[in-house]
Amino acid sequence: MLQKSHYLRFMIRIVLLGSGNIATHLCKAFISSDAVSIIQVYSRNKESLLSVSNLVDTTTSLSDIKEADVYIIAIPDDAIHSFSETLPCTDKLVVHTSGSVGMDSLSEKNRKGVFYPLQTFSKNREVNYTTVPICVEAEKASDLNLLKRMGQAISENINEINSEERAKIHLAAVFVNNFVNQLYYIGSGLLEENSLSFDLLKPLIVETANKIKTLTPTEAETGPAKRND
Amino acid sequence: MLQKSHYLRFMIRIVLLGSGNIATHLCKAFISSDAVSIIQVYSRNKESLLSVSNLVDTTTSLSDIKEADVYIIAIPDDAIHSFSETLPCTDKLVVHTSGSVGMDSLSEKNRKGVFYPLQTFSKNREVNYTTVPICVEAEKASDLNLLKRMGQAISENINEINSEERAKIHLAAVFVNNFVNQLYYIGSGLLEENSLSFDLLKPLIVETANKIKTLTPTEAETGPAKRND
Repeated sequence: MLQKSHYLRFMIRIVLLGSGNIATHLCKAFISSDAVSIIQVYSRNKESLLSVSNLVDTTTSLSDIKEADVYIIAIPDDAIHSFSETLPCTDKLVVHTSGSVGMDSLSEKNRKGVFYPLQTFSKNREVNYTTVPICVEAEKASDLNLLKRMGQAISENINEINSEERAKIHLAAVFVNNFVNQLYYIGSGLLEENSLSFDLLKPLIVETANKIKTLTPTEAETGPAKRND
Repeated sequence: MLQKSHYLRFMIRIVLLGSGNIATHLCKAFISSDAVSIIQVYSRNKESLLSVSNLVDTTTSLSDIKEADVYIIAIPDDAIHSFSETLPCTDKLVVHTSGSVGMDSLSEKNRKGVFYPLQTFSKNREVNYTTVPICVEAEKASDLNLLKRMGQAISENINEINSEERAKIHLAAVFVNNFVNQLYYIGSGLLEENSLSFDLLKPLIVETANKIKTLTPTEAETGPAKRND
């Protein structure tokens, strides 16, 4: 039987940098995979590491970061560039997880890539990663292959997407997620003002979304305002 | 054993007036119920009756309309008032299925009511009626009870809602359905312009809607634009 240390040699070793929703969800998804090993999670904030500290090795010090095959930066978009410059490693594969940040924002001192899971992640809500589209990009073909294998460890939906395409996808995602949430919020407010339960709208909300699986947005255009017309 | 004609006496007898999406979906839902009997479907357009003519008795002539316990008008909103005036019956329970039309729009010559299923209906797409909120309203308590029983024949979600409340619900429904569909359409267009598949957005769309079942719209506000912030 192989020793664990030996077996680990064949797994993709990941250091995860960040402790927000996406880092936490990625960490949990990768932990249950056989092809990938999260060997460390870094965050400057010790408190925020608590949700994963019983699962993996953690650190709050960049100088303690371990040797890995991939370093995943999962932090707010506007901090990605400067953070990537502060990493102590060189010539390693360093990727970010952002939809709207170009691959070129990453520091020149490492090999660049992107690993963008196109989904909305909330604390305390499980996500079925199997269907989540993972958009991958890398400068080198071998790195791209590594990112694809890494994606396949958690999802069946891996897409090679460059930075320009990803920016369009991210914009479209803002329309169908953030703006849609705003509309749910307005709907909820209209009912609340009139002491009516938001539960009344939930079956409509879910059916409106589920329709999109089989109909195009144009075909799906019925509903309250178009009904019977 | 009871004769079918005898058994029918205990069922709520419905004449359905209209042949659009909502009329067709209601017809199919009621047909599989034991408590309700669709005894006839009327439409001035013979062609449009084809989808139900193998299931129930149909007519294109208002003068042939049968004696029933409830007459359900399921036609475009702006035609409800004038159509209700042309019905040959008097002192019968006549209801419409519209969210935005007040109960008072119905003709004075019959007893008024509303039977509003709060859902989006498309041709060729099955709807699970069990969870669809049915909003009922009537002038008389006995009619309201009849509409509740009628609703319970197809759904577990019956709500007594007056015309003023229903107008608010309908407005909220336009936000979470029609406007949301517009956002799906914009998202779809953004991807299409760039030769990217709309399938990429579908898991996000469905998760954004499903989140609403357990989180409030405020709690659900994460996603591409807020991620990691």
